[in-house]
Amino acid sequence: MAEVENKQIIFKGYIEGNPRETDMEFKVGKKMKMEAPKGSGSLLVKNLYLSCDPYMRGRMRNFHGSYIPPFVPGSVIEGFGVSKVLDSDSPKFKPGDIISGFTCWEEYTLIHKTDQLRKIVADDIPLSYHIGLLGMPGFTAYVGFYEVCKPKKGDCVFVSAASGAVGQLVGQLAKLHGCYVVGSAGTNQKVELLKNKLGFDEAFNYKEEADFDAALKRYFTNGIDIYFDNVGGSMLDAVLLNMKNHGKIAVCGMVSQQSLSQPQGIHNLFNLVIKSITMKGFLQSDYLHLFPNFLEDVVRFYKQGKIIYLEDVNEGLESGPVAFAGLFSGRNVGKQVISVARD
Amino acid sequence: MAEVENKQIIFKGYIEGNPRETDMEFKVGKKMKMEAPKGSGSLLVKNLYLSCDPYMRGRMRNFHGSYIPPFVPGSVIEGFGVSKVLDSDSPKFKPGDIISGFTCWEEYTLIHKTDQLRKIVADDIPLSYHIGLLGMPGFTAYVGFYEVCKPKKGDCVFVSAASGAVGQLVGQLAKLHGCYVVGSAGTNQKVELLKNKLGFDEAFNYKEEADFDAALKRYFTNGIDIYFDNVGGSMLDAVLLNMKNHGKIAVCGMVSQQSLSQPQGIHNLFNLVIKSITMKGFLQSDYLHLFPNFLEDVVRFYKQGKIIYLEDVNEGLESGPVAFAGLFSGRNVGKQVISVARD
Repeated sequence: MAEVENKQIIFKGYIEGNPRETDMEFKVGKKMKMEAPKGSGSLLVKNLYLSCDPYMRGRMRNFHGSYIPPFVPGSVIEGFGVSKVLDSDSPKFKPGDIISGFTCWEEYTLIHKTDQLRKIVADDIPLSYHIGLLGMPGFTAYVGFYEVCKPKKGDCVFVSAASGAVGQLVGQLAKLHGCYVVGSAGTNQKVELLKNKLGFDEAFNYKEEADFDAALKRYFTNGIDIYFDNVGGSMLDAVLLNMKNHGKIAVCGMVSQQSLSQPQGIHNLFNLVIKSITMKGFLQSDYLHLFPNFLEDVVRFYKQGKIIYLEDVNEGLESGPVAFAGLFSGRNVGKQVISVARD
Repeated sequence: MAEVENKQIIFKGYIEGNPRETDMEFKVGKKMKMEAPKGSGSLLVKNLYLSCDPYMRGRMRNFHGSYIPPFVPGSVIEGFGVSKVLDSDSPKFKPGDIISGFTCWEEYTLIHKTDQLRKIVADDIPLSYHIGLLGMPGFTAYVGFYEVCKPKKGDCVFVSAASGAVGQLVGQLAKLHGCYVVGSAGTNQKVELLKNKLGFDEAFNYKEEADFDAALKRYFTNGIDIYFDNVGGSMLDAVLLNMKNHGKIAVCGMVSQQSLSQPQGIHNLFNLVIKSITMKGFLQSDYLHLFPNFLEDVVRFYKQGKIIYLEDVNEGLESGPVAFAGLFSGRNVGKQVISVARD
């Protein structure tokens, strides 16, 4: 039986602040048998695309109170990916199938938990989109916008980290819904993309704003109905001052909060009371019954040319650490993907 | 026509921190004609009971972004009251009627806005309860608990400022709903009342707790489903650490936040994301369609002996400033009322 070398990205040990390239290590792992052992129910896959997602920072911390356990120091990093089945001991999959779901940051993975894996039906949509537009980030945008924000036509919507994997879809869905949409991002290039490619009504570079409150007042003269929050911190604090009565805040992420042990203070929560604001944290995994509707709607929008999706693809498994660390400095433009193999 | 002296409590000028007795002034106002002028649609009333409510602090600040405008310096303080109609130019009310609604802190008031006034039907419920149990605070507890928290039997409920005008009813409604209920208060006397008179399962004196997180863990080994927040600040921060997944926080007040310009920072909002928590500010005025249901339910519970209501009654209009300032140091035990006249 064929045995092959398996290149891997290893999680070195728990961190406190933001992930750095040096918190991960590229190495050649043990030789691996190219089979899914009989009776194991597992799949042997070749990983094609791996997903860099901000939530993974939480798994690098020694914190066990979250919805997903921390990584194990010295082990291969886990994450979403698009993979090709090489051998299958599961009746649901056969060699040659392309799947998306949880895999590991390595060339070949033996996947034991197969219930959440999804078979990808070949069409003209790029395979990597199944960890972005049609994967967890896209689904997060979809349920966050429609289910958590419950938008109405004409609503004034603000999206932070607006060119990111989630934000770019939120903004486009909001435009399709008839909303006025403003996004913030961290470079002028991203601001241009938001306005000229992604169809946002307005966008601004938060790094060039000394006063977030003043920046928001410039774009929302009558206040904000919906804030899709990907960052937390001082932007959230400024947004609270600019919400309309009965406004809604979907709290999707707090990527600006580098430290779990000393997060920044939010000072303007009294606005929740005086303006009857609802602020709701959510996890896409609570809405999985809507996944088929999501796929149907977003695939249709995409095929009709009503939405586009920006990706930032790093070539080669070795580029994983630098790509992942870059998420937290805003290096990526659009959804960050690692391309491991083309087929 | 009879003209009488009219004693009044005057709002002296805008404040920053908590109200002090000296921010208000007792004086004898202009002589007043004992009539509701023809064609004015107004009512002349004699005020019997006046309500001291924490939201009134907001009206003492020079801040115009709230749901209710600030008081006018030099003018009589406005608030909820129970009053007797002496003369009426409105077809809806006649002399002798007892009403509850917005009036002023004085002996006699000419009320021009009569739409929100409610006629009280005489029964064996104390008149003053119409600004407490059966008034705005009681209604706030009712809609906050049932509509905002949407409780289930068996839920673990925490109430801060639990012996106050709102909190004491929230806790009793939660017990009637089959919940486990813990309250916090600021004196050992209040803690005793919560446990022995109001039927809370547990209660603690927050002033004797060095570590709110540890205190909450003592009473909620498996976490909190519902937090009815009357105080904000560091208690809210500790609660966020102890919420269960999909928990709900009804933000009713932030009485601990003395300063609007420098409110305390809340550091643990990342829990909203990792636990899918909903945090909702609300105003009772958004739910007025439920007022008849509220009255029916709460009057029934009261008459059945299933709930009680604690009041702290100060005698005489002159006692208004001291009674109101006392709300913010926790001097009051139960709903703070000023008794101006018995009939």
